Amino acid sequence: MNGDALIQAASAIGAGLAMIAGIGAGIGQGFAAGKGAEAVGKQPEAQGVIVRTMLLGAAVAETTGIYGLVIALILLFANPFV
Amino acid sequence: MNGDALIQAASAIGAGLAMIAGIGAGIGQGFAAGKGAEAVGKQPEAQGVIVRTMLLGAAVAETTGIYGLVIALILLFANPFV
Amino acid sequence: MNGDALIQAASAIGAGLAMIAGIGAGIGQGFAAGKGAEAVGKQPEAQGVIVRTMLLGAAVAETTGIYGLVIALILLFANPFV
Repeated sequence: MNGDALIQAASAIGAGLAMIAGIGAGIGQGFAAGKGAEAVGKQPEAQGVIVRTMLLGAAVAETTGIYGLVIALILLFANPFV
Repeated sequence: MNGDALIQAASAIGAGLAMIAGIGAGIGQGFAAGKGAEAVGKQPEAQGVIVRTMLLGAAVAETTGIYGLVIALILLFANPFV
Repeated sequence: MNGDALIQAASAIGAGLAMIAGIGAGIGQGFAAGKGAEAVGKQPEAQGVIVRTMLLGAAVAETTGIYGLVIALILLFANPFV
C-alpha cells in the first residue's frame, strides 16, 4: 500500500463526513416550510409575500449544506493531495 | 492488501456517512407536515394553498438529503479514485 | 487478510451508518403525528383533511430514511466493490 491510497481512502471518508452538514439545512428549511404553511393558512391573501419570504430564508439556510457539498466534490474530483 | 481495497473500503464507509444528512430533511419535513395538518384543521377552506406551501418548502428541505445521496452514489458507482 | 475482507467489513459499517438517517424521519413523523392528533382533537369535523395532510407530509419525510435503506441494501447485496 502506498501513501496515495491512504490519502484517497481518507478523502472518501472526509467527503461523506462533509455531507453531514446537510442536517442543519434540512431541519431549518423544514421549520420554515411549516411556519410558511401555517402563515398562508391564517392569511391566504398574503400568500405571495409569505412564500417569497420563506424561500428567501430557505436559500440562506441552504448555504452551509452547499459548502459541505463543495468540499466533498473537491475531495473527490479536485483533491489537492493526490 | 492493495491500495484499491483500502480506497473501496473507505468509500463504503463514506457512502454510509453521507446518508446521515437525511436526518435533517426527516425532522424538517415532519415539522412541516405537523404544522400543515394543524393549519388545515383550523382553515380547511385554505387547504390547497397550505398543502402547496408545505410541499414547496419540503422540496427545498429535501435538497441536502439528495446531495448526500448523490455523494454516496458517486462513491459507490462513479468513484474517481478506483 | 485480503482486500475483499476489508471491503466487506467496511461495507457492513457503512450499511449501519446509512441507517442513522432514520433518526430524522422518526422525530419528524412523530411530531406530525402529535400535531395531527392535537388538530383532530380541536376540530373533529375536519379529521379527514387533517389526516390526509399529515400522511402526505409524513410520506415526504420518509424519503431520506428510504434513501439510507437503499444505500445499505446496495452495500450488502449489490456491492460494486466485491
